[in-house]
Amino acid sequence: MTSANSSSRSRYPAGSLAFPHRGLLGLAGLAPHEILFLLDEAEQWVELNRQPTKRVDHLRGLTIINAFYENSTRTLLSFEIAGKRLGADVVNMSVGQSSVKKGETLIDTAMTLNAMRADAIVIRHASSGAVRLIAEKVDCPVLNAGDGQHEHPTQGLLDALTIKRAKGEFVGLKVVICGDILHSRVARSNILALTALGADVRVCAPPALMPADIERMRVTPYHDFDAALKDADVVMMLRLQNERMTGQFIPSPREYRHLYGLSVDRLARAAGDAIVMHPGPMNRGVEIDSNVADLPGRSLITTQVEMGVAMRMACLEVLTRKARKLEGWQ
Amino acid sequence: MTSANSSSRSRYPAGSLAFPHRGLLGLAGLAPHEILFLLDEAEQWVELNRQPTKRVDHLRGLTIINAFYENSTRTLLSFEIAGKRLGADVVNMSVGQSSVKKGETLIDTAMTLNAMRADAIVIRHASSGAVRLIAEKVDCPVLNAGDGQHEHPTQGLLDALTIKRAKGEFVGLKVVICGDILHSRVARSNILALTALGADVRVCAPPALMPADIERMRVTPYHDFDAALKDADVVMMLRLQNERMTGQFIPSPREYRHLYGLSVDRLARAAGDAIVMHPGPMNRGVEIDSNVADLPGRSLITTQVEMGVAMRMACLEVLTRKARKLEGWQ
Amino acid sequence: MTSANSSSRSRYPAGSLAFPHRGLLGLAGLAPHEILFLLDEAEQWVELNRQPTKRVDHLRGLTIINAFYENSTRTLLSFEIAGKRLGADVVNMSVGQSSVKKGETLIDTAMTLNAMRADAIVIRHASSGAVRLIAEKVDCPVLNAGDGQHEHPTQGLLDALTIKRAKGEFVGLKVVICGDILHSRVARSNILALTALGADVRVCAPPALMPADIERMRVTPYHDFDAALKDADVVMMLRLQNERMTGQFIPSPREYRHLYGLSVDRLARAAGDAIVMHPGPMNRGVEIDSNVADLPGRSLITTQVEMGVAMRMACLEVLTRKARKLEGWQ
Repeated sequence: MTSANSSSRSRYPAGSLAFPHRGLLGLAGLAPHEILFLLDEAEQWVELNRQPTKRVDHLRGLTIINAFYENSTRTLLSFEIAGKRLGADVVNMSVGQSSVKKGETLIDTAMTLNAMRADAIVIRHASSGAVRLIAEKVDCPVLNAGDGQHEHPTQGLLDALTIKRAKGEFVGLKVVICGDILHSRVARSNILALTALGADVRVCAPPALMPADIERMRVTPYHDFDAALKDADVVMMLRLQNERMTGQFIPSPREYRHLYGLSVDRLARAAGDAIVMHPGPMNRGVEIDSNVADLPGRSLITTQVEMGVAMRMACLEVLTRKARKLEGWQ
Repeated sequence: MTSANSSSRSRYPAGSLAFPHRGLLGLAGLAPHEILFLLDEAEQWVELNRQPTKRVDHLRGLTIINAFYENSTRTLLSFEIAGKRLGADVVNMSVGQSSVKKGETLIDTAMTLNAMRADAIVIRHASSGAVRLIAEKVDCPVLNAGDGQHEHPTQGLLDALTIKRAKGEFVGLKVVICGDILHSRVARSNILALTALGADVRVCAPPALMPADIERMRVTPYHDFDAALKDADVVMMLRLQNERMTGQFIPSPREYRHLYGLSVDRLARAAGDAIVMHPGPMNRGVEIDSNVADLPGRSLITTQVEMGVAMRMACLEVLTRKARKLEGWQ
Repeated sequence: MTSANSSSRSRYPAGSLAFPHRGLLGLAGLAPHEILFLLDEAEQWVELNRQPTKRVDHLRGLTIINAFYENSTRTLLSFEIAGKRLGADVVNMSVGQSSVKKGETLIDTAMTLNAMRADAIVIRHASSGAVRLIAEKVDCPVLNAGDGQHEHPTQGLLDALTIKRAKGEFVGLKVVICGDILHSRVARSNILALTALGADVRVCAPPALMPADIERMRVTPYHDFDAALKDADVVMMLRLQNERMTGQFIPSPREYRHLYGLSVDRLARAAGDAIVMHPGPMNRGVEIDSNVADLPGRSLITTQVEMGVAMRMACLEVLTRKARKLEGWQ
């Protein structure tokens, strides 16, 4: 196990990769070869995590701070486990105990974490752009673990990794993303990754949950889920946030399920070997039926969770190469 | 320090132990030799914890997830320290940040933790049976850290270890357990362990807090604490939960203390060398008087806490032997 | 990197240091050579923390428990990072999950942490004296991370370290501490450290926030901030707690800023090379203006945070020497 295996380094020379020097704020602006490089790097960690002993010393002596201003069990656990398996010292900044409650500005918190000599800061925040604000004030790489309705880049990467391992190639692959496209940072990061990699991305949402300028993202919009599903290779369902379940956006969860929920019958419209994905946590019986979520060989929802830990290990390992003074990364 | 010392292994061959293959959900169904094996294993960790340097590498590279759905400082700290002293990567899933609040089912959470390749999951939950539900869905051993009114097996084991070290033998030992027998998972796990090991267990409770079918558990029920205490070797007091202190169960904390509280006078009815135990946290002046709780040489309440860390180390170490591919445990 | 570098050991022989044997409850009673010893010890950790790999094994196998009864992101993060970089197993006792909520006494919690064989306990508590109460009941050193309006010794030490590195000597140095002197444990610990080291300490506060017997602390009191600032070498601003911003103590935050806020104009009354300090989190625009807080070369506010981690490493390392049986410290 080497931190930069020779095959990937030769395919993507360090000099051609811009992101290690500024963190990972989003997938917008990443070149396809940069995304593919990260997917390749993650493979070694998928393998490691399947061993009885899941630990390396690559990040020994480095301090990673998880600063989650918004609750998220899954993503926080995933980053914490990723950091620890790489040998780093991981500390979680508790929201409940945050100085933010004492009125401290986001920038002062960032400068504090920086002064403690963090080697990487992982941030989740309810405001789009908050992560960039912090990244501009600190010396270490910042990883965006989801900011408002902007981006969730490691989710986009782990989904791409899941798809790559299942389907091999991205070019021409028919991917449907269905749900609240308007507010979803998961949708946004996935669209950016998958279109960059050459997939044919279709997005499907009720009119009130579709961005007005969606065509600018190089995707095909649908309001009819049945039409969107035709011959699809990948069906990615989005979580319907509780706060959208009533009122202006959709008539009712029941009506939503009728029009935009993924059932076994509806899945039959996709390709015979189409895979089913969901970023979790699921509303079973709303956006996805239980028998689809648990469909053996077709649903890759738990595989996504597994790829998540590996993908975050890859991002943390690559982004700290400069700090660790790895040859070719300084 | 070896993970399976030769003496215990020869007395209890791996093939005769059922629990390492399915976690530790409760003490019901454990054979006496299985309980004794775990008590023997804990001894080495008692010794280690008394050294200046308290750390081994047995579980290095393994991920332990503590998923506490119910608050518990003591038990969580105890498991976290146990895991870290064994060299594992320990992560706590915060209840406050749990996806459960987003409506995720217990089973989906279990499948998520499993996909992150946890090597052991420690669960506390307010519902009896929730731990079993999770255990059925994951590939790794699950340790019950208390589920509803069902069981709290590591508490039963640490209490047995405390008694064994103080009294030597279990057969014929007179043990009184006094308090809310009806709702107490601590009482239940203790009864299961101590009766299996041959102790003469007496349970004492007000009528409203005694299970109707208590005789089926092979114990002698008492409503008169003074009678129950006669010649007792061990007096184990249970915590009176705040929510039982008023209303239907007892007239008042004052009345409860009068009838079922352990005072120095009352302790005099037990054997001259009887030991006093309490799982904590104590309500001093309710179920136990302060001068009894602090009685030198007789009160083993802080010893129970010490044995708790050692016992949890033993459980974690034994239950992960299969995953670590130790000879004879695959 | 050695745990006790030879130069400092020769200057301050172990036998002349009282504190390692009883923890660090406050700076009151510490001799100047004991304070200077700790400042000297911290230097090695400042250096280490500026390296790519920030980790030693000095405290490997030791368990440090952070028991914060009062929220504090910065101080908790600082102690957690300090412990981990020294190689210790660090566990945080969550207030929200504390048995205290179940009515357990502070002393019972202390005895529980002690029974788990903690090697150091770091405590923050809203009540003055709570830390001493715990320290009397446990076998390991206790570090006060702030108790009520009493002391915050590591803050006093990190501030002294910041000043020493900027100014070299303490004797005759003119230090102004401005703000809520009455309620501030930061002010108290700083006054104790700086007067012991020979600085000329001036304290400035509105009449309602100045202790009646302040002269007993060997400082010069001022109500006029402009007068206090004259030729000052160090200007240390205190945080105005939200709960003091209205009502009996000050007319309004605006009025407070007018009389006691540090602006660029006001700073001009101090020495030309005066440094600006603040323990954080800041109320920008109340006790300190943003352009002063961010003044390059003059504001050392983020340096204080950096020194905080190093200073806490020094305290943890020195206080555990006895437990680690280092030669000369038993």
